Amino acid sequence: MSANDAPETLDPEDWPAMRALAHRAVDDAFDWLSSVRERPVWQPTPAAIAAQFHQALPRTPQGAERAYQDFHDWVLPYPMGNVHPRFYSWFMGNGTPLGAIGDFLSAIVNPNMGGGNHVAIQVESQVVDWCKEIVGFPAEASGLLLSGASMANLVALAVARNATADCDLREQGVGAQAAPLRVYASVEVHSCAQKAVEMLGLGNQSLRKVPVDADYRIDLAALQRMIDEDHARGCKPACVIGNAGTINTGAVDDLKALAALCKREKLWYHVDGAIGAVVTLAPRRRELLAGIELADSVALDLHKWLHVPFEAGCTLVRNSAAQRATFALTPAYLKHAERGLASGAVWFSDYGPQLSRGFRALKVWLSFKEHGLDKFGRLIDQNIDQAHELAALIRAEPLLELMAPVVLNIVCWRYRPPNLAPDQLNAFNEELLIRLHESGIAAPSYTTLNGQYCLRAAIANHRTESRDLKIMLDAILEIGAAMSREPLGRNPNKS
Amino acid sequence: MSANDAPETLDPEDWPAMRALAHRAVDDAFDWLSSVRERPVWQPTPAAIAAQFHQALPRTPQGAERAYQDFHDWVLPYPMGNVHPRFYSWFMGNGTPLGAIGDFLSAIVNPNMGGGNHVAIQVESQVVDWCKEIVGFPAEASGLLLSGASMANLVALAVARNATADCDLREQGVGAQAAPLRVYASVEVHSCAQKAVEMLGLGNQSLRKVPVDADYRIDLAALQRMIDEDHARGCKPACVIGNAGTINTGAVDDLKALAALCKREKLWYHVDGAIGAVVTLAPRRRELLAGIELADSVALDLHKWLHVPFEAGCTLVRNSAAQRATFALTPAYLKHAERGLASGAVWFSDYGPQLSRGFRALKVWLSFKEHGLDKFGRLIDQNIDQAHELAALIRAEPLLELMAPVVLNIVCWRYRPPNLAPDQLNAFNEELLIRLHESGIAAPSYTTLNGQYCLRAAIANHRTESRDLKIMLDAILEIGAAMSREPLGRNPNKS
Repeated sequence: MSANDAPETLDPEDWPAMRALAHRAVDDAFDWLSSVRERPVWQPTPAAIAAQFHQALPRTPQGAERAYQDFHDWVLPYPMGNVHPRFYSWFMGNGTPLGAIGDFLSAIVNPNMGGGNHVAIQVESQVVDWCKEIVGFPAEASGLLLSGASMANLVALAVARNATADCDLREQGVGAQAAPLRVYASVEVHSCAQKAVEMLGLGNQSLRKVPVDADYRIDLAALQRMIDEDHARGCKPACVIGNAGTINTGAVDDLKALAALCKREKLWYHVDGAIGAVVTLAPRRRELLAGIELADSVALDLHKWLHVPFEAGCTLVRNSAAQRATFALTPAYLKHAERGLASGAVWFSDYGPQLSRGFRALKVWLSFKEHGLDKFGRLIDQNIDQAHELAALIRAEPLLELMAPVVLNIVCWRYRPPNLAPDQLNAFNEELLIRLHESGIAAPSYTTLNGQYCLRAAIANHRTESRDLKIMLDAILEIGAAMSREPLGRNPNKS
Repeated sequence: MSANDAPETLDPEDWPAMRALAHRAVDDAFDWLSSVRERPVWQPTPAAIAAQFHQALPRTPQGAERAYQDFHDWVLPYPMGNVHPRFYSWFMGNGTPLGAIGDFLSAIVNPNMGGGNHVAIQVESQVVDWCKEIVGFPAEASGLLLSGASMANLVALAVARNATADCDLREQGVGAQAAPLRVYASVEVHSCAQKAVEMLGLGNQSLRKVPVDADYRIDLAALQRMIDEDHARGCKPACVIGNAGTINTGAVDDLKALAALCKREKLWYHVDGAIGAVVTLAPRRRELLAGIELADSVALDLHKWLHVPFEAGCTLVRNSAAQRATFALTPAYLKHAERGLASGAVWFSDYGPQLSRGFRALKVWLSFKEHGLDKFGRLIDQNIDQAHELAALIRAEPLLELMAPVVLNIVCWRYRPPNLAPDQLNAFNEELLIRLHESGIAAPSYTTLNGQYCLRAAIANHRTESRDLKIMLDAILEIGAAMSREPLGRNPNKS
């Protein structure tokens, strides 16, 4: 551009047309969301649609309307399905309309939440304070919103690593730690714990997996033995991860007993509350979480059972100085000023690995204000009630077998036709689940418990009604019966 | 809830009212965004507003309208300012209207991009393929969208660490690596490199900071000497980070020469392209980036110079097997099925630390299609032209001093009244910048070069016109003149 040319911009040439497109997007979105129950939970993406996503880099403009239309035609019809009342896979929330409006507004205001003096920072501080209240942490604890619990656990374990090391680990690295650090968690701990210790340079071997009891809760005596063994062999027991809701079955470790053990053994006590930390809000189940308030750090998710749209997780650290000591770093170009834009009491970049940070706090703030946390608590109780209802239906049906105790909202079961060998049962249920997904009727997921493949429903769904669970089981019985009649049904061809 | 009670839900009792609120949010957002030029870049948050963000956890519902109104009254008026045509702080983009619509739609569809078989995964694969094209990477490279370059650099350096170790670092940890790994980058490298080596357990001491030449580019001879030294003292040179645009001055290392050196020395070659990787799109400057296509990994940002709303960064890794080997981990509850929802060729959770991942790909996909990458390239050239214009204006003004060469879009300068000692000059310019922020006229940021405090403008702004730079300099000259007349102006009271 020479100084005489009109400068280009990404702003619309025609503001009213762009505004009209936004209104159209709102109408399409509301039509789609309010009618979600009428559509299949999931359906495969047609090959002709999938082929649209192998284009060369678009050099020339297609325009906003065309881009939106392609979203409307190619993307909107083939969702993952977790907005649907009969989606129970893995552990996800549904999202909410105001949560989505919040993400739109965040992107309009578009602040960088790494630091600076602007009101969005206050919004995140408020939300972090509210998360402290949810788990019973003191006001002087620190915290940070993150993408989700994988990152929240990683950040908390980074603080635990640095705070428990005998050396200046931040400066010298893991290699300078003479007695290797050891982290303990039950065999049921989420895989993100392994990914975290690997990322942190401690290695997977630093993560000692502790056996569980029949209810999938950590075996405290075994934990104590492993700690003693590690002391004896010259390792340094550093941290215990308690599970507030395991991913497989929803089991909750004895969080009080773990707190006492960590205090006695002088270990960092971290709680992975991705699934269950928010059960503290549920009037009829909150006692299950007793002891979480004693942790040194907690990871929780807001995009799971609190239904804030992805992504929204949170790390809380009791000792804020330890969190700052792990992450704060202020080069000349980020120096905090006394007044003006570059001032501000809290720079969130001092509390985690991200410098560029989006305004995910807004959707959380809006959601909490919209509904109030009492309602989220009642909905958690409602989902747990539904899980117990589902378990009762399974117990009452001879062809179904409940595979694990139901504590929170996770139910594991399988279809068990007579006369199938164990490996045939696994293959049968694997195929049955795929056919259930393909039917579009319901989408539980799966796991393997003691070598036995199970269907698994995690009912973290504010749209689910009791009838949905019956619809799911009826479909399973129908598919199972049809498979039982097929020659290959008893031994599915897995080619 | 007993089975007879009506279940609760977070869905609106009154869908039309919620839809109307969304339309109102769109109208307010468009009014606000299209008139941004008429408002101050920044203003402090009034204490009465800040006080609103110290509430107890809301237990009871306030309703969507009230929550939105509070956003409208308390949050919208006090933005960071990076949407404004005269915001040049740090290095941020402005966002775009369609980008914000994209975030709304992502949150409506609300998929978890960790894995599974749904069309959103195809959108991210497409966007990652486009990012490979931007930097000249081969199609078989792997990649992942992340929150931004801090995380993108961290992920790439995790892969580099594991790929260059002599041990099974993922299993055994950094302590098992006999010859300590060393990472090299110039003294101008972004602080996220230090945060990354600290997080990865290598320790800050593993990051060797290499001197720069007068143009702030890495000194290749010094780098070679440091590598030789480290070999001699039993360390293992592992990785070089090349700067494609430094944060202080926009300097670009000799990326071709670094590639040759890394090939010769068998080092992992990573390029931090947070700022400059996308200059490959700019027809008149792309030759500055020659050599980036030879890297083993590249981190780039899409929320900076490509103006996608926060958050959107990307890691690219030439050897996809190395990226998978660092992050893939498939427990029973995440096993990839053959058909159905849990199938799918690519599980992005196998390529990075996150399992829960939002649909940030959508806003990128929409933005690229809307404008075409040629336009983004022209806008990058436009901003670089503006930076040269600003430098020329500074050079022409006796009271201003240009402090570093201008290569890309970053300009460092200071106000230099006669007869001030060096420390007085620093304090003077620090105060001047704060007053400029407080004026609301323009928001450059700051850095310190060779002990000298500078004002610093990073013009990554699709709304900036040449007149905006003149307006900023006029304000600086006016504030500087006023300060020069004050008794305290020459020695500001920093109490």
